[in-house]
Amino acid sequence: MGEIHLRPRQIIIIVVIFVVIILFITNTRQNCEFPKYYRSSARKDDLPTIFAITPTYYRPVQKAELTRLSHVVMLVPNVHWIIVEDADHTSSLVTNLLQRAGLVERSTQLSAKTPTQFKLQGKDPNWSKPRGVEQRNAALRWIRENTSKDDRGVVYFMDDDNAYSVELFEEMNKIQAERVGVWPVGLVGGLMVEKPILNNENIVTGFNAAWRPERPFPLDMAGFAISLDLLHKRPEAVFSFEVERGYQESEILRHVTVLKELQPLANLCKEVLVWHTRTEKPKLTEEEKLRKAGKSSFDGIEV
Amino acid sequence: MGEIHLRPRQIIIIVVIFVVIILFITNTRQNCEFPKYYRSSARKDDLPTIFAITPTYYRPVQKAELTRLSHVVMLVPNVHWIIVEDADHTSSLVTNLLQRAGLVERSTQLSAKTPTQFKLQGKDPNWSKPRGVEQRNAALRWIRENTSKDDRGVVYFMDDDNAYSVELFEEMNKIQAERVGVWPVGLVGGLMVEKPILNNENIVTGFNAAWRPERPFPLDMAGFAISLDLLHKRPEAVFSFEVERGYQESEILRHVTVLKELQPLANLCKEVLVWHTRTEKPKLTEEEKLRKAGKSSFDGIEV
Repeated sequence: MGEIHLRPRQIIIIVVIFVVIILFITNTRQNCEFPKYYRSSARKDDLPTIFAITPTYYRPVQKAELTRLSHVVMLVPNVHWIIVEDADHTSSLVTNLLQRAGLVERSTQLSAKTPTQFKLQGKDPNWSKPRGVEQRNAALRWIRENTSKDDRGVVYFMDDDNAYSVELFEEMNKIQAERVGVWPVGLVGGLMVEKPILNNENIVTGFNAAWRPERPFPLDMAGFAISLDLLHKRPEAVFSFEVERGYQESEILRHVTVLKELQPLANLCKEVLVWHTRTEKPKLTEEEKLRKAGKSSFDGIEV
Repeated sequence: MGEIHLRPRQIIIIVVIFVVIILFITNTRQNCEFPKYYRSSARKDDLPTIFAITPTYYRPVQKAELTRLSHVVMLVPNVHWIIVEDADHTSSLVTNLLQRAGLVERSTQLSAKTPTQFKLQGKDPNWSKPRGVEQRNAALRWIRENTSKDDRGVVYFMDDDNAYSVELFEEMNKIQAERVGVWPVGLVGGLMVEKPILNNENIVTGFNAAWRPERPFPLDMAGFAISLDLLHKRPEAVFSFEVERGYQESEILRHVTVLKELQPLANLCKEVLVWHTRTEKPKLTEEEKLRKAGKSSFDGIEV
């Protein structure tokens, strides 16, 4: 076999075929079955980083809760998950969970112990003392130290027991600079839906809250997210142990926004994309019997 | 510019470069951040189809529960999700949810109403009547009609309120032909962990159940999955309204296996990958007041 003679036109044709094949491969290849509505916006670089702050504490259902919550974080590539444990040190339970979920590179593990005087005691009902204050403030401090005011980002408070849809995070991507996004929350405050009320010009004029509607911002922690630049502009915006029950949301929001500046999301507040679910405390009566007999059902097993 | 002369060796070099570039593109490109442990087995065609059967019924937390459960299904590409509603007809709530999750092509929506005499009445405690019997049997019927005995598959009963890890489904992929896989379940039967007990040869000899340990198979519905071929071999294996409380698992298993044939999974039953969580019934006192006044917090909104 001798030499092959190629004309310039033939070389151009070969190059075009080569480019077409590469474009075809890069466009059709899908490694996993993301829902289509999400795929279109999955170019992570174009998206703001969503800092999702999750205060948590040890109890029998903790790993179960964090495991199912990790799934929505896995599905939304622009979330940076900040888990803050109410403890002196971070735990191997959370470290292992983040490792197994493949989330080490886009998560931060912190600990911040609630001061003893603010801790729930024995039979205190769980609403009698503010919860998550120390932990959320530790996360806010971390965010202010590790981002700059020019970074595009959103800060969201994501409790470990609520139910969050993937679509909710799509909505957060739409939050404008220097604004706070708001949306309805299901199953909270004694209502099926607690939601912002809009006027004809789609400006938020109030909320439909039935519980303490006199609060400046009568909404749930799951019902808003804050543009990152606002946290840099208002370093005084934090949570406080000094405010009345139900006023934590109002406490941070009063520093960063006013009612009419809130940005209504989730199809102009007509869709529920997050639910205030609560998990039952499991009855461990048989475990208690074992314990009294010096035994355990879970020796060496992390539950 | 004249012709370009290429020797055979030069053509081979160009082809090799071309192939290397294509291999590089196809190997490095990742559309989403799946955890690494999962990526290795993400070649869907090599995997059995896991038929996950979820009985469900309308209540305020239903959409919240199914939404967070849909995330683990989205993350595991070889799951086929069979949702069976306790109703005369399938609902648009479930249809919309499957559509938005991008799961239409790998799910089946069924309905099967529990006969009135077996339905929980008013203040019956939720364990007083068997639940999910009619729905799980409808799903088993669908599976037997729509698969053949030579298909590779696994059948799992996935309730809508438990917490499931992605790793659990990796374990199910290991279930051998004509076998039933078993593993520990967290927070069930009054214990932190209810688990199979193995002897020195890693054969299952019993369970550590404290509640009704005399049952033939004293384990939870979340603690086992059945190789598809067994369901074709034993068409009589179904659930029954006629058995005592806590005996549904034993009822189906007695037709398809014996204790010593159970296949221990989850690191020889030393890891907890699924938890029997329960979601609180939300207090909707304010909604009730609105209802009495002829109002609602969720007109036109699906919660």
